[in-house]
Amino acid sequence: MVHINAGMAALAATLLIGRRKNLDYVLPSPHNLPFVVLGAALLWFGWFGFNGGSALGANGLAVNAFVVTNTAAAAAGLSWAAIEWFRNGKPTIFGVASGAVAGLVAITPAAGFVSVIPAIIVGLLASVFCFIAVAAIKPKLGYDDSLDAFGVHGIGGIWGALATGLFASKSVNALGANGLFYGNAKQFIIQLLAVTVTIAYTFFGTLIIYKLVDLVIGMRVNEKEELMGLDLTQHHERAYTILE
Amino acid sequence: MVHINAGMAALAATLLIGRRKNLDYVLPSPHNLPFVVLGAALLWFGWFGFNGGSALGANGLAVNAFVVTNTAAAAAGLSWAAIEWFRNGKPTIFGVASGAVAGLVAITPAAGFVSVIPAIIVGLLASVFCFIAVAAIKPKLGYDDSLDAFGVHGIGGIWGALATGLFASKSVNALGANGLFYGNAKQFIIQLLAVTVTIAYTFFGTLIIYKLVDLVIGMRVNEKEELMGLDLTQHHERAYTILE
Amino acid sequence: MVHINAGMAALAATLLIGRRKNLDYVLPSPHNLPFVVLGAALLWFGWFGFNGGSALGANGLAVNAFVVTNTAAAAAGLSWAAIEWFRNGKPTIFGVASGAVAGLVAITPAAGFVSVIPAIIVGLLASVFCFIAVAAIKPKLGYDDSLDAFGVHGIGGIWGALATGLFASKSVNALGANGLFYGNAKQFIIQLLAVTVTIAYTFFGTLIIYKLVDLVIGMRVNEKEELMGLDLTQHHERAYTILE
Repeated sequence: MVHINAGMAALAATLLIGRRKNLDYVLPSPHNLPFVVLGAALLWFGWFGFNGGSALGANGLAVNAFVVTNTAAAAAGLSWAAIEWFRNGKPTIFGVASGAVAGLVAITPAAGFVSVIPAIIVGLLASVFCFIAVAAIKPKLGYDDSLDAFGVHGIGGIWGALATGLFASKSVNALGANGLFYGNAKQFIIQLLAVTVTIAYTFFGTLIIYKLVDLVIGMRVNEKEELMGLDLTQHHERAYTILE
Repeated sequence: MVHINAGMAALAATLLIGRRKNLDYVLPSPHNLPFVVLGAALLWFGWFGFNGGSALGANGLAVNAFVVTNTAAAAAGLSWAAIEWFRNGKPTIFGVASGAVAGLVAITPAAGFVSVIPAIIVGLLASVFCFIAVAAIKPKLGYDDSLDAFGVHGIGGIWGALATGLFASKSVNALGANGLFYGNAKQFIIQLLAVTVTIAYTFFGTLIIYKLVDLVIGMRVNEKEELMGLDLTQHHERAYTILE
Repeated sequence: MVHINAGMAALAATLLIGRRKNLDYVLPSPHNLPFVVLGAALLWFGWFGFNGGSALGANGLAVNAFVVTNTAAAAAGLSWAAIEWFRNGKPTIFGVASGAVAGLVAITPAAGFVSVIPAIIVGLLASVFCFIAVAAIKPKLGYDDSLDAFGVHGIGGIWGALATGLFASKSVNALGANGLFYGNAKQFIIQLLAVTVTIAYTFFGTLIIYKLVDLVIGMRVNEKEELMGLDLTQHHERAYTILE
């Protein structure tokens, strides 16, 4: 749910704030690809604490969360690369990193309730849905979401919450419930409802908060500051200092 | 004590060695801010092993050390940012990283003896004392401590050792002692004595060692080598190799 | 064995594929030394999971693997630096990183079977053998192994597998065997045989696979693509994007 929240809030905010002024002639590719890979790797590692730690004990459930987290991230990294390969002729390491994060997001709600084979399916499809959001929905709606908080975290989170309703099994976690594919359609309906309510609550809540903040403080910098860059004009700090 | 040692040795050495030749016209800002943040993050993570591991067991004391370490670092990061905000108009990520390290240093001697509320106080005040050292004492004394080993590690370590004498509680660690605020002024006196002895021992010990090494080998490179940079002239190695 | 495989495959492939066109006038030094140090540090940390985790339990054997892994890496880092100091006049951080990896590779087969003093010897000698491979054998044979997969992983792996046959002790792991220095020459013969078979299998297997792939797909890019760089021509991705 935390990723659906982040993603829907990002969608609402990016739709309202509009695009960067220089987006049409400056390609928004990452300035430092090694940092992208390093960040994805550290996230992947940290996620073991996030999902495995949710069992609140060094037990079989923590091991299950650990294993399905790794499996889903790997499957999603591979499937994003495969989609790029098929569509663009080349897989990229940037795509593998995006896919891995999508897989980590998607498996999170399910980590304590599904087994390994469902985790592979969750991961493979996470990249399919997130890639569609990033490569088709984003250009169509025209919002400027530079980190793809909606495309990867929002869509990945929605898919993960629904997938939990499909693949959850009491054989993994006796305190949980079975999902649709284990004969309990009711759990899927519950997940679907929770997702819908979260989407509506966050999207409209963000719209209201955005408008209020925009009235009181203002949400967008002026054009000159934007072209100079937010690091310098807003934070008074620069990433790299190179002396002659 | 290890941080007081490092800090006092740095103070003694920087006072003796003098300032860099080009310090007056070259701003000593970090050349790669992402590395600063990454380094602080890896330190923060590693510190869980450092403080949590000192319990020598996977027990409640290790959990306490883990929790107060994280809490103090977070409080100190926030309070450094707040001080910058108030004094300079802008908080910086560089300040948050400095504050987090100050908090980690300060909580270290206390991690096995204090609970969460004292940890917040230790963290908040760590940044206050260290900021004063870096922003007021350093310019006044004029020593050139580029990593603020004295300002952050030395002052943070002194504060942490004294704070242990204030906030230590037998309810956290039955094998420890109560501090001043838990009715045992004697422990604070012990900490104060230990700090004073450590400061004097390290400061004067470093002066003697410095003078001896300076006589035998020499401590400062010549001016030409200094302007060319120590990486090239002393280590024969450069950080980045960029080909045309 | 995995490192012997990687190293011998690299040797076979680099001997067949030949040298980079521009290797004679472009110095193959790392473009970003902080990344080298960071990568070695993350590898070192991850290796605790690799070797410690092989005990499949939080027991004394895992602790032994943990301790000897750290000890061998540290010893090898120091000894590589000492060799450079003696031979080239300066130790380098690049050498320390290479040595640490060599030590990690070498201790891996032995981690569950040797104690701390042998681990120091394994580490110290790992850098000696790997340095000879990198600084003497590589220039002599003329293969272009930019990551020293053969020199560090292959030679380090061979030394580690043999060292296990020398230093293994039933006092560390009752389920293992004693090595030569603990009175069981047979174990050393077994290790020597396993190493020889692995070397031959991987070297000739790689030659055959290389030739087959070269026939069907082709193994080397054309000269123009090589000079433009494989990132751009093969992967369609660049590490850094710097806008004016």
